[in-house]
Amino acid sequence: MGSLDIKQESSPYTMTNPLDPEEFRKQGYMVIDFLAEYYKSLEEYPVRSQVEPGYLRKRLPESAPHKPESMDTILKDIQTDIIPGLTHWQSPNYYAYFPSSGSTAGLLGETLASGFNVVGFNWISSPAATELETIVMDWLANMLNLPNSFTFSGNGGGVMMGTTCEAILTTITAARDTFLNKYGPDTISKLVVYGSDQTHCSFFKSAKIAGISPSNFRTIKTTRSNSYSLLPESLKSAIEADLKNGLIPLFLVATVGTTSTAAVDPLGPLCDVAKEYNMWVHVDAAYAGNACICPELRYMINGVEKADSFSFNAHKWFLTTLDCCCLFVKNPNALVRCLSTNPEYLKNKATDTQQVVDYKDWQLTLSRRFRSLKMWMVIKSYGVDYLRNFLRSHVDMAIYFEQMVKKDKRFEIVVPRSFALVCFRVCASAVIQCCGQKFLEEEKLNEINSELLESINSVGKIYMTHSLVDGIFLIRFAVGATLTEVHHVTYAWKLIQEHATIVLGKRSPKNIISSQCE
Amino acid sequence: MGSLDIKQESSPYTMTNPLDPEEFRKQGYMVIDFLAEYYKSLEEYPVRSQVEPGYLRKRLPESAPHKPESMDTILKDIQTDIIPGLTHWQSPNYYAYFPSSGSTAGLLGETLASGFNVVGFNWISSPAATELETIVMDWLANMLNLPNSFTFSGNGGGVMMGTTCEAILTTITAARDTFLNKYGPDTISKLVVYGSDQTHCSFFKSAKIAGISPSNFRTIKTTRSNSYSLLPESLKSAIEADLKNGLIPLFLVATVGTTSTAAVDPLGPLCDVAKEYNMWVHVDAAYAGNACICPELRYMINGVEKADSFSFNAHKWFLTTLDCCCLFVKNPNALVRCLSTNPEYLKNKATDTQQVVDYKDWQLTLSRRFRSLKMWMVIKSYGVDYLRNFLRSHVDMAIYFEQMVKKDKRFEIVVPRSFALVCFRVCASAVIQCCGQKFLEEEKLNEINSELLESINSVGKIYMTHSLVDGIFLIRFAVGATLTEVHHVTYAWKLIQEHATIVLGKRSPKNIISSQCE
Repeated sequence: MGSLDIKQESSPYTMTNPLDPEEFRKQGYMVIDFLAEYYKSLEEYPVRSQVEPGYLRKRLPESAPHKPESMDTILKDIQTDIIPGLTHWQSPNYYAYFPSSGSTAGLLGETLASGFNVVGFNWISSPAATELETIVMDWLANMLNLPNSFTFSGNGGGVMMGTTCEAILTTITAARDTFLNKYGPDTISKLVVYGSDQTHCSFFKSAKIAGISPSNFRTIKTTRSNSYSLLPESLKSAIEADLKNGLIPLFLVATVGTTSTAAVDPLGPLCDVAKEYNMWVHVDAAYAGNACICPELRYMINGVEKADSFSFNAHKWFLTTLDCCCLFVKNPNALVRCLSTNPEYLKNKATDTQQVVDYKDWQLTLSRRFRSLKMWMVIKSYGVDYLRNFLRSHVDMAIYFEQMVKKDKRFEIVVPRSFALVCFRVCASAVIQCCGQKFLEEEKLNEINSELLESINSVGKIYMTHSLVDGIFLIRFAVGATLTEVHHVTYAWKLIQEHATIVLGKRSPKNIISSQCE
Repeated sequence: MGSLDIKQESSPYTMTNPLDPEEFRKQGYMVIDFLAEYYKSLEEYPVRSQVEPGYLRKRLPESAPHKPESMDTILKDIQTDIIPGLTHWQSPNYYAYFPSSGSTAGLLGETLASGFNVVGFNWISSPAATELETIVMDWLANMLNLPNSFTFSGNGGGVMMGTTCEAILTTITAARDTFLNKYGPDTISKLVVYGSDQTHCSFFKSAKIAGISPSNFRTIKTTRSNSYSLLPESLKSAIEADLKNGLIPLFLVATVGTTSTAAVDPLGPLCDVAKEYNMWVHVDAAYAGNACICPELRYMINGVEKADSFSFNAHKWFLTTLDCCCLFVKNPNALVRCLSTNPEYLKNKATDTQQVVDYKDWQLTLSRRFRSLKMWMVIKSYGVDYLRNFLRSHVDMAIYFEQMVKKDKRFEIVVPRSFALVCFRVCASAVIQCCGQKFLEEEKLNEINSELLESINSVGKIYMTHSLVDGIFLIRFAVGATLTEVHHVTYAWKLIQEHATIVLGKRSPKNIISSQCE
C-alpha cells in the first residue's frame, strides 16, 4: 500500500485528495532530492542510452496497476527502469544534435506553471499568463535588438509556442490565407515555398501539412564554397522559373544556424529578393537565435528587420527547459485573421473590448501552457549579463575544441565553426597515410568517420551526432549542455583522438596482415 | 545581489552553474513550499482574476534585468504580481469551461520530465521516452476497453500530444493525403469535412490549417429534442448533397461530450454512414473520454471500434497536468506516410532496423516532451480503482448539484446532465412571476441569465462559464477540479441562489418603482 489512504469501500469523498498540500510537500521534496542526486551522478551514466529496442516492455506489467504505489516505490522504478533508457541530454558530455539546456530557474518555472496549471487560451482565462508573455517577448525582442516592428509597441508582437515546427506552420498558414483571399481558394496548388537544401526538414513538413503541394517545394542547392548558405541569386532564379510556369511564390524560410553545420543565410539580401515578389519571409534561428543576444554575435541576424517573422527555440540554448519556441511577427493580424475562432463558450467582456491579446488566435491550438513564467524566471534568476556570458562560454569552448582539432593533422574542420558547433572529420590524408594507399574514395572516408563516431558513442562516455553535406559525412560537436565545462571538452577531445587511433590503426597494413594471420 | 556568485570580470567558466545540484535542491524546496502554501490558501483568492487589462505592464520593468535576482525575490514577485492575474483553475470553486485537473503525481511527473529534459523525437534520442509512451498508451486503451486494433499489439497504437487540436490536425492531414494520393493533389479543393454545430471550434480551424476550403466545412444542425447530438440521417443527407455537387467526403469528427453541453454523438451509427463513403472518422472525447475508464460509463463510446481514431485530453480530467492529449489510431502508417521525415542528421541504426517507433513521424512537430512519465506516475500513484472513483465522485457531485437545481422552481435544467456537466438557467416562469409580466422574450431571458452569471463571477467566490445553444443562454457547472468536495458544491449552489434572488429582485415591480423614485 502506498502513501495514500484509500478506502475503496467507503464513500469516494473520503479519499485523500491528490492535491493535498502536505502530501504534495512531502513528495515534492522527494522528487527535488531525486533530481539533485541525478544531476550529481549524471556523469556515471552512458550519455547515449545503451538499451535494446523493446527493453521496457519486458520490465513493466502488461496492464495498469489497480492499487496505488508510493512515491518512494515509483522513484525506485524510475532509477531502475527509466534512467537506463534515457539518453542524457543534461550530461556535461552531451554534444549531440543541438543542446536542450535546462537550468534550475527554467525547471522550477516549469514546475510552478504546471502547479498553477492554468489554460491560458485567452486573456480572461488567466490574464497573467497572457500579459507576462507579451512583456517577456518584448524583453527578448529588446535583448535581440529586433526592430520595434516586432514588438507590441510597434504593432507587432511575440508569442511562445512549443517548437519551431509550430512557428513555421503558423506563419505559412497565415501567409497562405493572405494569398488565397487575394487569388481564390483554388490557387492553393500554385503556391510555392522556398528554402535551401540545408533548411530544417520541418519546413517542408509544415508546408505539406498546410496543403502546399510537395511538387512546389523548392530546396535550393548550397555549396561548401559558400559555407552552405543560401545565395540570393539562386533564390531569384528559382522564383523566376516558377513565375514562368504560372506558379505563385509564397514563402521563404531563411535559416540562421542550420542543423547540419550552423550555416547562416544572408537575411538582408534574401529578404530583398523575396520582397520583390511579395513573399513572406520567416527567419528560423532555432538554435543560433539564442546566441544573438550577445552584441558581438548580433550581426548574424542583420537583415531580420526586413523579414516578416523570426523565431528561436529558447529550450535549445537559453536555459529554458523544453518546450519554448519564441516567435515574433510584424503583422499579428495576419495570424489572427487566419486562426481566430470565436465560439460562444469562449466569449467574454475583455475579448469584446479588443483591448487584450487572446493568444489562441496567434497559434494552431486552443489550449496553451504558461510558458512565459519559466522564461521570466530564467531572465530574472540569471540576468541578461550572465545569460550572455553563458552563451559566450559555450562559443569559447567550441573555439577551444576547434583549435585542438586543427592541431591534430589526422583531422580536418569541414566547415568553419559557427556559434558553438564544430563540424569535423578524420581527413583523407590521415587514412591514406595510415593505410599506405594512394587514393581514398569519399565513400570510404565517410565509412571510416561513421565507424569512428559509432565507436565513440557506443562506449557512452560522450555523445555526438553526424550529418552529411555535399556527400561529406561530418561529425558534429555541439557545445551547449548547461553542465559542460572546459575539462569536459578536453576529455572529449582526448577520447576522440584515442578512438581515431584505434579505428585508423585497424586499417594499417601491419594490423590487417596480423589479423589475417590469426 | 541574488544567490548566484557571478563575477563579471573573471572568466565566464567560474560562474556558478545553473544546474548546480545543491543550489537546485535549495531552490527546489522553496518552490515546493511555495506551491504547497498556494494549494492551502487557494480558496482565499478570487477564482476568476479581477485584474484589468494591462495591469502587469504597469508593474514590471520595461526591459529585462541585467543582474540576477534570488529565488526568494522571484517568489515574492510571483505572489505580488502574478497570482492576482491568475484565474485559479485548481481552485475547488472552479466550475468553468472544462477542468484542468492537476495532482501531486502529475505535477511531479512533469517536474521529473522537465528535469531530465530529453527531446524524444525518435527512439534513440531517449528510448525510455518512446517505450514508456507505447506501454502507457496500451494501458490506457485497456482501461478504456478500446478494441485491440487501437493498440500496438493490434497494429494500431497511441501517441501523446499537446492538445486535441493537434490530434485532429494530425489525423485530418493523414486522411487528406490518403485521398490526395488517390485522386491527385488538385482535388484538395473538393474535400469536405463534417461535424455538427456542437463540434469544437478547433475542428474547423484544423481543417482550415490543413488546406481544406472553408466552403467545404459542414456544420450539421443539432436540436434540443435530440440533446444536441448529431443524427446519422442528417450526416447522410449532407454527404449525399455534397456528392451530387461533385465533392469528396473526407472526414467526420464525432464528439463524445461536446463543449457546450457534453452531448454525445452516436458513434456506431455515424461510423456506419461514414464508412459507406470511405471517410475517416475521428472521435473527439476530449473531456468525456476520461470518464469512460469507468465501466458504467463506457457505453458512451460504444461504436468507437468502427472509428479510425480516438482522442481524449488527460489534462482535462485525469489528474495529468497540462498538456496531455492521448490519440489512438488504427493505422499509424497513414500518419507515418504523411508526416515522416528522414534527414541525415537524424539517421541512426535503431531507426534503420524498423523495430522502433519514431514518434516524430506520428505528429506535427519534431521535438516532443516526455509526457508519458507523468501519465505513468499518475496511474501508478493512484491506481486504476482510485482514478475511477475520482471520476465517479465528480459525476456524483454533478448529480447532487442537478438535484438541487431541480428543487428550486426558479431554475431549469436546459439539457439532461451528462458526465459531470450541469447546464442550467433561471427559467422564464421565474422571471415572469417576479416581474409580473405575461410573456418573456428568449433574448430577455438570456440577458437575465448572463447578468446572473456575471454577477456571480465578478465576486470571485466561484467561477462558471456559459454557452449558447439553439439561442438559449445556459450556465455551465462543470465539476472536475481536483480539490472540489461536496461542501464546495453546496456552497456554490447557495451562492447561485442568492445572486438569483438579487438579480430577479431588481426586476420586481416594487424595486423598479423604488429605484425610479430614488
